[in-house]
Amino acid sequence: MVDTVVAKALLGRDEKIVRVDLGARSYDIKIGRGLLEGAGAEIAAVMPGARLAVVADETVAGLHLKAFSQSLKAAGLEHTAITVPAGESTKCFREFERLCDEVLAARLERGDAVVALGGGVVGDLTGFVASAVRRGMAFIQVPTTLLAQVDSSVGGKTGINSRHGKNLIGAFHQPALVLADTAILDTLPLRDFRAGYAEVAKYGLLGDADFFAWLETNWQAVFAGGAERDEAVARSCQAKADVVAADELESGRRALLNLGHTFGHALESAVAYETERLVHGEGVSIGMMLAHEFSQRLGLIGEDTVERVHKHLSDVGLPVRVQDIPGQLPPAETLMDIIAQDKKVSRGALTFILTRGIGEAFVEKGVDPALVSDFLKEKLEA
Amino acid sequence: MVDTVVAKALLGRDEKIVRVDLGARSYDIKIGRGLLEGAGAEIAAVMPGARLAVVADETVAGLHLKAFSQSLKAAGLEHTAITVPAGESTKCFREFERLCDEVLAARLERGDAVVALGGGVVGDLTGFVASAVRRGMAFIQVPTTLLAQVDSSVGGKTGINSRHGKNLIGAFHQPALVLADTAILDTLPLRDFRAGYAEVAKYGLLGDADFFAWLETNWQAVFAGGAERDEAVARSCQAKADVVAADELESGRRALLNLGHTFGHALESAVAYETERLVHGEGVSIGMMLAHEFSQRLGLIGEDTVERVHKHLSDVGLPVRVQDIPGQLPPAETLMDIIAQDKKVSRGALTFILTRGIGEAFVEKGVDPALVSDFLKEKLEA
Ligand SMILES: NC(=O)c1ccc[n+]([C@@H]2O[C@H](COP(=O)([O-])OP(=O)(O)OC[C@H]3O[C@@H](n4cnc5c(N)ncnc54)[C@H](O)[C@@H]3O)[C@@H](O)[C@H]2O)c1
Ligand SMILES: NC(=O)c1ccc[n+]([C@@H]2O[C@H](COP(=O)([O-])OP(=O)(O)OC[C@H]3O[C@@H](n4cnc5c(N)ncnc54)[C@H](O)[C@@H]3O)[C@@H](O)[C@H]2O)c1
Ligand SMILES: [Zn+2]
Ligand SMILES: [Zn+2]
Repeated sequence: MVDTVVAKALLGRDEKIVRVDLGARSYDIKIGRGLLEGAGAEIAAVMPGARLAVVADETVAGLHLKAFSQSLKAAGLEHTAITVPAGESTKCFREFERLCDEVLAARLERGDAVVALGGGVVGDLTGFVASAVRRGMAFIQVPTTLLAQVDSSVGGKTGINSRHGKNLIGAFHQPALVLADTAILDTLPLRDFRAGYAEVAKYGLLGDADFFAWLETNWQAVFAGGAERDEAVARSCQAKADVVAADELESGRRALLNLGHTFGHALESAVAYETERLVHGEGVSIGMMLAHEFSQRLGLIGEDTVERVHKHLSDVGLPVRVQDIPGQLPPAETLMDIIAQDKKVSRGALTFILTRGIGEAFVEKGVDPALVSDFLKEKLEA
Repeated sequence: MVDTVVAKALLGRDEKIVRVDLGARSYDIKIGRGLLEGAGAEIAAVMPGARLAVVADETVAGLHLKAFSQSLKAAGLEHTAITVPAGESTKCFREFERLCDEVLAARLERGDAVVALGGGVVGDLTGFVASAVRRGMAFIQVPTTLLAQVDSSVGGKTGINSRHGKNLIGAFHQPALVLADTAILDTLPLRDFRAGYAEVAKYGLLGDADFFAWLETNWQAVFAGGAERDEAVARSCQAKADVVAADELESGRRALLNLGHTFGHALESAVAYETERLVHGEGVSIGMMLAHEFSQRLGLIGEDTVERVHKHLSDVGLPVRVQDIPGQLPPAETLMDIIAQDKKVSRGALTFILTRGIGEAFVEKGVDPALVSDFLKEKLEA
């Protein structure tokens, strides 16, 4: 059990609460199966009398908006629903402008709130809108993908993409409340569930060996949707919340969350973000394998550790080798160029998250690019 | 003399410094004649080695960009200049997107800075861009209008307009440094100088009777550009900085800065923001007169106080009566509707900044709309 997670009975359901500690901007993440039904009451408790603008993508709106609306009505909360197309390309200036206009057209005032009902795309876009309308409206997240529940809804990063790259325009804007209904994940395609699971495994690998061992034993129940799913989501949120509380504006420790992400982003970029070939969590899974193999190459960990990570990620069905990506990949030189353009570079040396063992990741700022390049060449030829 | 303003000799020039006290986000406003020449050195001192994106409107670029660029070059600072059209309509989504793109295209990284060289329009737009690119770049203001030097560059409010109203989209984003060269105001058209002066007089009227008396004696020198101009800018910045430090996110005391603005905004809106008829500072001047006359009507101040305010504002050439606005105005009912739609309304009662004497403004939340309506009717017919 996560010690700071409180289990309580609400309407006969089990609910876990992770508190994100940010002084005056602190808030709760509530996690539980079937939480959506009581979402209106939860929101009314935090923002009595608020009027809401609810943003959802078309897929999620079709599946879950009706239940959410009913719960809001039951709690006496007026709301306007706004839908956006599903998919990453929705995180753009045009949708940002349209949503700002629609939120204003709904005559929301200070004291009202903007709600994101959806995955990371809707959460990131809507959060940025909430940060900007009237220079900051209250924001509530109802994450509907595993990735959003364990990662994007925690930490306050919001934003859209620019033609110069992903997530380059945005704001830090903390929500007032996060409601993660784990039953809502039952409708999520398996591939998206797996992709989110890569981030769950990441929390174990970067800083919690016990959690990783627990996942090795319990991952099937997490996928199946039992109490273990709630537990995995809560422990993941807690792990991210701890790092975020220590480092809200992302200067130091928060970098550990990038375990597997330098390689992962390079691979996503190499396939031009074509999600048919590779989604983010899959890139992270391969990236985490590469980070472990590279750590082994540097003598930081042994073969057995690499094997253990490899086994778990393949057991759950995640890709673990660059060769698992369908189609042709660019040569190592191109991947190196992408890595060098990444913001985590400083004057020649590369910054990587490496590891000394399961749960023992650390930030290494002085990685020699030549070593990485040789390593990548081998991996691409393997 | 303002006690917290430090006069020091820099390159033989007198410079005043107003410190804006916001904890980790504290910064200096430097005020002085000819400061532009040493601007590069000042910026390099705060952000050594930073690369800069400098935003200016076409008018200001034509007049002052060359001198500013030279000063940056002399200090060894690399920069990219970006121009936008002059005028309020530049505060829009399209320019926001374009500037974000251009700042990214200039390959600015964290640790680099975005600079606004201009009036309130360029300051507000550029500040919002700085807040959003990479979720927050350092921001430097070089205000070139009196209004920007004494008002919009202090306090961290940034933003753009939406079709639902002015300044409805934006962020709170504090600058790292503000450089107010009072000589740069020599090229400002007299009408714009006067409009900015309305805000200077406002600081005296809302909380500093001594400053208002000082202005009555010294306003000609302020307009002429002597040491008195620096003094007036510094005291104004200090007045706003004090309020902002006490109330960064605008919940209570900061409302005093709206003296004259409820009526003023209604008039601006009534002429559809046609600046040929009325610019913001002119609306504020008439609005301040109305606030004083309304306070007199409520028995809060006497005829003599109203007369004193009237004399000073007309002496400097500012409009003081609704009849000073060229063209037809809508009836009182329409103005009341505009006031009621204003965000400063709460359930029936109106919030106004009223006064008990020169330098003694206060926030009154329970103003009866019927009283205001009758008052406005008389004023429109007078
Ligand atoms: N802000 C952060 O800190 C942060 C962290 C990680 C990732 N992100 C961002 O998150 C985004 C990815 O998030 P994502 O993976 O959730 O993508 P997503 O929001 O696009 O959701 C993936 C797909 O699942 C569908 N979907 C969502 N919930 C569903 C449900 N319950 N049932 C059925 N279908 C459902 C969506 O319509 C979409 O097609 C990226 O844009 C990434 O940049 C942000
Ligand atoms: N952020 C805030 O707290 C705040 C406060 C008050 C007003 N504002 C905003 O400020 C804006 C108005 O600012 P403004 O009055 O400075 O308008 P502005 O920026 O449009 O400048 C007025 C005109 O003067 C020209 N100009 C600027 N500097 C000049 C110079 N030195 N010489 C010659 N011409 C020059 C400009 O090109 C423009 O045509 C409005 O959009 C208002 O909403 C913001
Ligand atoms: Zn990730
Ligand atoms: Zn004003």
